[in-house]
Amino acid sequence: MAIVTLTTDFGTLYPASLKAVILGICPGMDIVDITHSVPHADIRAGAFAIYSVAEYFPEGTVHIAVVDPGVGTSRKAIIIVSGGQYFVGPDNGLMMPAAGKLGDPEVYEVTNKDLLSTVSSTFHGRDIFARVGAFIAQGLDVREIGRRIDDYIGLDISDALIQDSRIMAEVNYIDDFGNVITNIPHNLVNRKIMSGTVLKINGHNIPFLDIYAHVDAGCMICLIGSHGFFEIAVNQGSAAKSLGLKNGVSLNIELIGECGR
Amino acid sequence: MAIVTLTTDFGTLYPASLKAVILGICPGMDIVDITHSVPHADIRAGAFAIYSVAEYFPEGTVHIAVVDPGVGTSRKAIIIVSGGQYFVGPDNGLMMPAAGKLGDPEVYEVTNKDLLSTVSSTFHGRDIFARVGAFIAQGLDVREIGRRIDDYIGLDISDALIQDSRIMAEVNYIDDFGNVITNIPHNLVNRKIMSGTVLKINGHNIPFLDIYAHVDAGCMICLIGSHGFFEIAVNQGSAAKSLGLKNGVSLNIELIGECGR
Amino acid sequence: MAIVTLTTDFGTLYPASLKAVILGICPGMDIVDITHSVPHADIRAGAFAIYSVAEYFPEGTVHIAVVDPGVGTSRKAIIIVSGGQYFVGPDNGLMMPAAGKLGDPEVYEVTNKDLLSTVSSTFHGRDIFARVGAFIAQGLDVREIGRRIDDYIGLDISDALIQDSRIMAEVNYIDDFGNVITNIPHNLVNRKIMSGTVLKINGHNIPFLDIYAHVDAGCMICLIGSHGFFEIAVNQGSAAKSLGLKNGVSLNIELIGECGR
Repeated sequence: MAIVTLTTDFGTLYPASLKAVILGICPGMDIVDITHSVPHADIRAGAFAIYSVAEYFPEGTVHIAVVDPGVGTSRKAIIIVSGGQYFVGPDNGLMMPAAGKLGDPEVYEVTNKDLLSTVSSTFHGRDIFARVGAFIAQGLDVREIGRRIDDYIGLDISDALIQDSRIMAEVNYIDDFGNVITNIPHNLVNRKIMSGTVLKINGHNIPFLDIYAHVDAGCMICLIGSHGFFEIAVNQGSAAKSLGLKNGVSLNIELIGECGR
Repeated sequence: MAIVTLTTDFGTLYPASLKAVILGICPGMDIVDITHSVPHADIRAGAFAIYSVAEYFPEGTVHIAVVDPGVGTSRKAIIIVSGGQYFVGPDNGLMMPAAGKLGDPEVYEVTNKDLLSTVSSTFHGRDIFARVGAFIAQGLDVREIGRRIDDYIGLDISDALIQDSRIMAEVNYIDDFGNVITNIPHNLVNRKIMSGTVLKINGHNIPFLDIYAHVDAGCMICLIGSHGFFEIAVNQGSAAKSLGLKNGVSLNIELIGECGR
Repeated sequence: MAIVTLTTDFGTLYPASLKAVILGICPGMDIVDITHSVPHADIRAGAFAIYSVAEYFPEGTVHIAVVDPGVGTSRKAIIIVSGGQYFVGPDNGLMMPAAGKLGDPEVYEVTNKDLLSTVSSTFHGRDIFARVGAFIAQGLDVREIGRRIDDYIGLDISDALIQDSRIMAEVNYIDDFGNVITNIPHNLVNRKIMSGTVLKINGHNIPFLDIYAHVDAGCMICLIGSHGFFEIAVNQGSAAKSLGLKNGVSLNIELIGECGR
């Protein structure tokens, strides 16, 4: 039996409508909330959320994702098939990083209107994506729901740039600990930074180490998080608060320590 | 197999006790959280939450609802049967709008104490409503749990008043986007307001349009939300913050645009 | 079929990875979130959360708990068996109050590395505890996962001291209503305080009564909560805000009323 996951910026009330629709079509289906706390309309943060967990789900899982500032406009509703898992949501890049991590994505535009109920202009999560996701979880072939397309929106969340001893980076996601997760992938770091190096990040000197407990409670640290990206943290505190950082802002990082490179 | 839903103002810890009780009686039961973030003791907001999603659940669903400032007093514990679905909770109006939307409600007072465990004076959600809901989900006839009553508390969440070009309205619910959902039902709006009309709401001029993306990011808009009520929103922002509005406050709305009526 | 519960300080994103791992090993398993809002690294608050709900779950339930400031250090990963239920998490006292309430705890250190996937240094919830919990829920004998130990970390959350008419207490937990739950167990209170007594708490005079509605909305009250501890509340308000209290702070309580003792 498949699993359906949900990733949205809906907060606390609207996800229940999606679950009602899914369980109406597939009684007993396992539904896992990835998060409903994606910052409102923040496609990059939503993309990171799905990217960070999709690989831990078994084959056949259907990920429904709705961070959708363009709801009601002409943006497409799409299905992505990759690595044996499925993604259903708007064509705005949201699901591409996760799909790309799992394999070689095939993208379909939802064209079979017979599967949908009356479609509101403001709640495609309930009226389109939940229904389509439930039918896929039930075993319906995606080719009966849509047509293969090649012109879809991409998104790269590993797009930091490195130049000599400087990294031009961005915040991908701020988690509930206040850890600041960047768009610097671990392989870029591994080539350039050794454990013990000191980095200057937005004016603060911060050591690059392996685990949070390597610095005292309240102290800043940077490390490779469990998601595979370079992350800035405060042991038992919030790096986002200490550094005044928000999703999507730029980071200016300089390697200054003596054990660097 | 039935579904059990939960709607409370409990926040994050206490819902787990209800789930423990339900799964102890009905192993494997599907439990859907509608929301546990109803503002504390706000019966109207809780009523809106259940109202907005109940119709999407299949027949046989049991909705347990606990927004219960009168816990431990003589207020009744009730079951409502309507449109093939069940509602279990306190007799304070909380479940009436949803039940009324689904059909013609029959109300029962819980009288069979043999079904309950030791009842605390502060946590009827766990000690009464979760148990009763689980027994109904399991198939127990409501007439073995309670007796039919006619004297129960009602609640109308569509009670806006319209007078010439003025609407006296209230906030039903503020969602996690900061959208302000009013007590003005869509049919009242459809008779009076055309798309493109400008409305003066608490001193701000706001256009009535169809979808959020019809205004620029950061701009105010009003529309009929997917729940069927007149709603004030800011595209990719929070109307509640922009207008300084909270649950339950009054709204003074005036139709001033030239395409009105 | 068993139930798996989750109690963490993870917030909204990381719990999904644990669920992916659990459902990958045990398809269809019932997973109940106790809470993911334990204040960051607050072991006492996490311990209270599990303690307050574990007894309502049926035999065979597996509680996975992760409030783990020592992740990546040499602190042990343990399994506790007590009263027919299982607890899996770090050896830092987090699970001991709940396990002690259910019976006579047997503690095992996780030693069988073959059951684990690659273990990251920062996310043992996903890489160790979720996997171990899923295997136990599936029926694997704990003696095939670890070895019995006697040197584990304890924690007492009922450790208030009473001296004449004074109680030296601490805050165990602040719930989402803002109710302040102390470390004063009900049996200590029952011996010393009668309903109607007035208590002086951090400078405020507060009556000890039975139910929230016994005082007017906005007024302070203290009572024995449904969890069995002495609690300070504001009817339809937040005692934590009114008294300026946070998790872990000290309380100075004096019995001053005439009906006392």
